[in-house]
Amino acid sequence: MFESAELGHKIDKATWKKLSLPLRESLLNVQYDLMQDRSFPVVILIGGVDGAGRSEVVNLLNEWMDPRFIQTHGMGEPTDEEKERPRMWRFWRALPAKGHISIFFGSWYTQPILRRVYRDNGNAELDQHMEDAVRFERMLTDEGGLILKFWMHLSKKKQKLRLTALEKDPKTRWRVSDRDWQHYRLYDKFVQICERSIRHTSTADAPWLIVEGEDEYYRSITVAETILQAIRHRLANPPKPAEISAPPLIPAIDKLHILKSLDLTQKLGKKAYEKQLEELQGRLNLLTRHAKYANHAVVALFEGNDAAGKGSSIRRITQALDARFYHVAPIAAPTEEERAQPYLWRFWRHLPKRARMQIFDRSWYGRVLVERVEGFCSQSDWMRAYSEINDFEEQMTRHGIVLVKFWLSISKDEQLARFKAREQTPFKRFKITDEDWRNREKWDQYEQAVCDLVDRTSTEIAPWTLVEANDKYFARIKVLKTLCERIEATLKQGGPASKSKR
Amino acid sequence: MFESAELGHKIDKATWKKLSLPLRESLLNVQYDLMQDRSFPVVILIGGVDGAGRSEVVNLLNEWMDPRFIQTHGMGEPTDEEKERPRMWRFWRALPAKGHISIFFGSWYTQPILRRVYRDNGNAELDQHMEDAVRFERMLTDEGGLILKFWMHLSKKKQKLRLTALEKDPKTRWRVSDRDWQHYRLYDKFVQICERSIRHTSTADAPWLIVEGEDEYYRSITVAETILQAIRHRLANPPKPAEISAPPLIPAIDKLHILKSLDLTQKLGKKAYEKQLEELQGRLNLLTRHAKYANHAVVALFEGNDAAGKGSSIRRITQALDARFYHVAPIAAPTEEERAQPYLWRFWRHLPKRARMQIFDRSWYGRVLVERVEGFCSQSDWMRAYSEINDFEEQMTRHGIVLVKFWLSISKDEQLARFKAREQTPFKRFKITDEDWRNREKWDQYEQAVCDLVDRTSTEIAPWTLVEANDKYFARIKVLKTLCERIEATLKQGGPASKSKR
Repeated sequence: MFESAELGHKIDKATWKKLSLPLRESLLNVQYDLMQDRSFPVVILIGGVDGAGRSEVVNLLNEWMDPRFIQTHGMGEPTDEEKERPRMWRFWRALPAKGHISIFFGSWYTQPILRRVYRDNGNAELDQHMEDAVRFERMLTDEGGLILKFWMHLSKKKQKLRLTALEKDPKTRWRVSDRDWQHYRLYDKFVQICERSIRHTSTADAPWLIVEGEDEYYRSITVAETILQAIRHRLANPPKPAEISAPPLIPAIDKLHILKSLDLTQKLGKKAYEKQLEELQGRLNLLTRHAKYANHAVVALFEGNDAAGKGSSIRRITQALDARFYHVAPIAAPTEEERAQPYLWRFWRHLPKRARMQIFDRSWYGRVLVERVEGFCSQSDWMRAYSEINDFEEQMTRHGIVLVKFWLSISKDEQLARFKAREQTPFKRFKITDEDWRNREKWDQYEQAVCDLVDRTSTEIAPWTLVEANDKYFARIKVLKTLCERIEATLKQGGPASKSKR
Repeated sequence: MFESAELGHKIDKATWKKLSLPLRESLLNVQYDLMQDRSFPVVILIGGVDGAGRSEVVNLLNEWMDPRFIQTHGMGEPTDEEKERPRMWRFWRALPAKGHISIFFGSWYTQPILRRVYRDNGNAELDQHMEDAVRFERMLTDEGGLILKFWMHLSKKKQKLRLTALEKDPKTRWRVSDRDWQHYRLYDKFVQICERSIRHTSTADAPWLIVEGEDEYYRSITVAETILQAIRHRLANPPKPAEISAPPLIPAIDKLHILKSLDLTQKLGKKAYEKQLEELQGRLNLLTRHAKYANHAVVALFEGNDAAGKGSSIRRITQALDARFYHVAPIAAPTEEERAQPYLWRFWRHLPKRARMQIFDRSWYGRVLVERVEGFCSQSDWMRAYSEINDFEEQMTRHGIVLVKFWLSISKDEQLARFKAREQTPFKRFKITDEDWRNREKWDQYEQAVCDLVDRTSTEIAPWTLVEANDKYFARIKVLKTLCERIEATLKQGGPASKSKR
């Protein structure tokens, strides 16, 4: 795998001079073409062994290209902000928008590989992380991203020579740290682990590109030329994603489905409601002050039929909370900035810190509900969304986030009554639009989409709670009670969730 | 995930009678259409909890369909034959040809899940196996296969009722074993582990389909109808595979590459050759009689330029071996039977038992050599082949197979000389064809393909050995020596490789 990068590739200074100027111009041009085209982002990873010129290459690329449209992320130790979120959060926030380029110097590979090298925690854990990487990158490429993963390589002998040379020269001595020598002593182990990682994560869409790092001229031209050709080719040849044939679905032989199984006649009297509401809000408030709550965070999301009472249920939660410690995100059509990113990006950005509660009024499930039913995305897109969503939610729960998902269900008749009431109540008229009436015509299709959503994403780590919402009192109490119980169950399991758990 | 399959789905006998006859006819018809069409195989997996009617469903499908084109594989404990090969071998040999249907009752999921349930060996190992499953199924769907994975479900309460009922009836008592009750006691753990597995392996192309198993009529109609619709839909809508944009390749900035780095002038005199040949053949023979050799097997494959001397090198190996313990497979164009299978199928079938040596004269690398260069497969096909091949080889080496890969390299001039000599030697004329001359015209493209092949598939577990073959003596000795050394290295590591290792 590294053989070709130990051949002693080099070019002389004259060749460098001849090649670098036109290459630089071309790179700048292709960068503007990319920006004009604005149909895909470019993610560049620079990994490799110490002394193979990783930082020099990154600096050169930044020097050669227009810094307004390229961002470099040196991913060292996570910041406090980042430690409070699931591991991949820091990479999501650094993803380039369509038309832009991000260079990751240190990436989602770095920590897992170093953990494997220093802690000897076995290949199984490493492989788990590598599969996470493959799934993440597959999502990026499915969303149109171009990923270029460079591995800057040096043979062990060459690494030693280079470190020694850098150390000898007073001008560059500062660049060699104890850590570099420590890495050198671990060279064989390190390279063996990297090889396994590269093998498992070199996919057809995002293969690793191994570059010999010894000669500065050679490695610079090689990386720059590869980037140029890849972007140029992609601009000229937009990829055609796979078209998935219709999904094999379980046909509704007996017409019974999960929504029909709900007893929507369940009711609660006003007195009982008020009493329970007070109790539950108090209980919830206490939970958020529990010592162990500080190790967790809560994400509660609300989906449901139009006019099912999502907003009023959410208000009954927030009434119980200190405004500094929760945030509600109403999810409407994505903004321009959000459309330039993978569809999950706008939800990742809202993930709460520890001891915070994030409430989503509608959520990432829009992908498999409205986008599916209205045809806003392709069949392949929503079909792959189920597993992308499960991956996303697994990352949250692994980090200790309590994820509570509500579907508020009302009958078609009840919806009609509420629509009409809204039209007649002046201060509620803004809540009913033509779109609501149009959605109503597709009732059956939405119902099918909800059943599929429950079948595919109601998981042990993040189950759906279906709420019978014809009676608002009943619904609000069920929501509050479920929320309290889910938080309690997590706090009881105990233990800080600061280490990522599987 | 299982909610919809705990609703108490059922249909009455009258509905069953009304639905089953036309369904049966349609199934038979679609089976013939599939057979006529012959463009894809159908793989059906039946998994689930005990008592959910798995075997009844399988029997019904066999009864309803034409048994000539459907095969059921009850995968219990592996046979002796199967234990001698990598874990997936038994599934590869049971794969259906295009136009055919295979039902797997027990599958590549069974053992990993049971290991997790009984041995408590952690989620990391389970996840590794699940990712193996995802990769395997992705390969199958990329090759055009239709995969339908059914999970027959029963709630814990229903499982108990059903086992009790079966046990009470003298006619069915035999069907309930101690193992079934043992499973029942482990129900919660079992279902939790299955849920994780289903979550990780429900992909867009091959999602799990969960069917409530309580009511015989309901589950039979549901599974049969799902199969019918899926095959029908696929016949009417052939999938369009993704078209991968050209691969990002490392451009040859300095024109140096791995083949050019070989010193083809290396030679060996006849005397030295004969002496070393005798020594090495003796050494090889002894190695195959080594006590530890019985725990391993050897796969040696030969690729190289036309006329590079693959055949004569292979003969120098086989001369040293007992004919009962090796086998040579010359790989030419695939047979009709082989073309009806994924491209790796014809190599899987040749994998050796323990203590055997299998020699491939050309190999699975044809996919990324001749098929790539001649355009016999699409760019996407050969691009994904690198990781499929790495997966394949990882499975071999994990099983304890010593995999030795030779590329025999000669110069363009030397090839010309050999071609001419062959044309003039009567008994060698059959060895030179028009195709050889045509391949020669594409020398540079083949060279590029070889460099990519080394970069992407020369791995620590299965490195390539590049053999300078302008001098036949030198080449044969290098081959034999490498083979001996690789076997020795494995035997020295010691330990039986009977347990699959990562």
